[in-house]
Amino acid sequence: MKDVFLPKIIDKMNSIDSYKQDFVSYLNKKIAVKEPENLYEPIHYILQIGGKRLRPVLTLMTCELFGGNYKKALDAALAVEVFHNFTLIHDDIMDSAPIRRGQETVHKKWDVNTGILSGDAMMIMAYQCLENYGPSVFKELIILFSKTALEVCEGQQLDVDFESRNDVTIEEYIKMITNKTSVLVAAAMKMGAIIAESDAQEAQKIYDFGLNLGIAFQLQDDYLDTFGNAAEFGKQIGGDIHENKKTFLYLKALEVCDLEDKQQLISLYKSKQNQKNKISEVTHIFNKNKVAELTKNEIERYSNKAFNILENIVIPAESKAILKNFGMNLMQRKV
Amino acid sequence: MKDVFLPKIIDKMNSIDSYKQDFVSYLNKKIAVKEPENLYEPIHYILQIGGKRLRPVLTLMTCELFGGNYKKALDAALAVEVFHNFTLIHDDIMDSAPIRRGQETVHKKWDVNTGILSGDAMMIMAYQCLENYGPSVFKELIILFSKTALEVCEGQQLDVDFESRNDVTIEEYIKMITNKTSVLVAAAMKMGAIIAESDAQEAQKIYDFGLNLGIAFQLQDDYLDTFGNAAEFGKQIGGDIHENKKTFLYLKALEVCDLEDKQQLISLYKSKQNQKNKISEVTHIFNKNKVAELTKNEIERYSNKAFNILENIVIPAESKAILKNFGMNLMQRKV
Repeated sequence: MKDVFLPKIIDKMNSIDSYKQDFVSYLNKKIAVKEPENLYEPIHYILQIGGKRLRPVLTLMTCELFGGNYKKALDAALAVEVFHNFTLIHDDIMDSAPIRRGQETVHKKWDVNTGILSGDAMMIMAYQCLENYGPSVFKELIILFSKTALEVCEGQQLDVDFESRNDVTIEEYIKMITNKTSVLVAAAMKMGAIIAESDAQEAQKIYDFGLNLGIAFQLQDDYLDTFGNAAEFGKQIGGDIHENKKTFLYLKALEVCDLEDKQQLISLYKSKQNQKNKISEVTHIFNKNKVAELTKNEIERYSNKAFNILENIVIPAESKAILKNFGMNLMQRKV
Repeated sequence: MKDVFLPKIIDKMNSIDSYKQDFVSYLNKKIAVKEPENLYEPIHYILQIGGKRLRPVLTLMTCELFGGNYKKALDAALAVEVFHNFTLIHDDIMDSAPIRRGQETVHKKWDVNTGILSGDAMMIMAYQCLENYGPSVFKELIILFSKTALEVCEGQQLDVDFESRNDVTIEEYIKMITNKTSVLVAAAMKMGAIIAESDAQEAQKIYDFGLNLGIAFQLQDDYLDTFGNAAEFGKQIGGDIHENKKTFLYLKALEVCDLEDKQQLISLYKSKQNQKNKISEVTHIFNKNKVAELTKNEIERYSNKAFNILENIVIPAESKAILKNFGMNLMQRKV
């Protein structure tokens, strides 16, 4: 966060880094390896290998910006992070992914059965993280949590379904990434607001803010995978193209390009092998059709939608500025 | 249930069959196939192919016996049954089982990824079944439910661990079946008591009754797999021996037999192929060492433990008689 914009507020508020640090200490304290070891060790492993901790930080930050004590939101933040990591274990099995965050995935390091069972246990543990809240807040949190979790499963199913479909629309794609990614970002924030005992309407607004920011974030992911700077991005540029992933870029290109490009793009995406020059040829079609610009426009459209919602939330202007700054930084990220 | 023992009570009470019918109608009303179909169709499938519905019936019956309206317990009964069926989907993947209740398993009919994801969704749906309860009962139910669900995962992990261990004790085996099977039977009953707003102490007693009855039930399963009547049992006799499963029978035999039998038993259990006469040879060692009788004794010991706990529960004598009758029928089952 650049404090040139917000010198006063930053003084009062925790910084993103300090939220993250507090969260990680809390996580380390709470997630111990118990018996049976073969069940809990993989859980410990995936939670330790890090990640941006974006969702739990959003829970803590939202709680504080809505006038609550952010420490009260640590359990909810943990629930969100444990759930997110559960989805990573099961998704990695489904995608046969060998590497996650530069480390072996759970089903690679152990085996598929371990990945399934430890994942199941994590989902239950995520629910258990919420047990310290009083009955009324507890119920509100659990209902939101279950709704979100089921939507994430639906999003994952749509993602799987899209692999074998050739008629996916951009609208359907947005629906998929909304379920698979954005609802959890939105719920992470709303949980912070609920714990701060905010008005239900305002809590819903921060949910909608998170939802649109989450969509922009995922589109940014698509963009960076092809147009990012390899050194900064930290993973292979063009991975999505290599894997024939029907991202926003691909679907947008199909929508705007001429018949010749369309046929070539579809044909390139049929190649299962690591076809020579595939990434550069697809990128060439993207460039020719200004797909980078069109994607940037869409990212901006969702960011602006989020920021407009933010304007109408009844919280201090300073709090809004912090959230806007956070969102803008997120959209300027290179990784 | 044989009404010769309990003519008066049966008049007032629902019969096991009518609980089951009410439950199945409720399940059919609640579990519809939604979009995305590929996620919800397998859920619908596994819930439709039946089973004894033992756990949900216990929830309804306990609620009524503790003075509640059993219809109020339908949602909790559904949560228990949906959770139980989720564990079947994931367990069948881990065991590479092709058949469940005479039908193809989910991962066979669809694929492993579908089994993983639909199972995940079912676990969340199980939690959602409880959302109609008021905040205080809701919280009590969810805490019990999560604790139980995690214990079931731990039991499954122990079961997996035991496959590659040669030093499993009977005590460890009882701990494994307690977690894998009995805690859910116990929790199913306690949930009925909670919904009937019973005293916490009495609810705990019915939990302990269910726990011991559940252990007896699982030992009975081990017994029937080798000593059941093939025609009545409905599946291949000796399936556990064929699969080298370290059941109570096997562990008990190792405990009581002489060195020669022990070596032969271990050697027979090392054979991976469908070794000729394996089942009859193992059964011969079991018979020689009176393993059937020893197992029956243990079943009786856990049943009696359950019935002694039942005696001390503060509910009408008639209610106790119904539960005892239910338990005794369960222990006399042939399937």
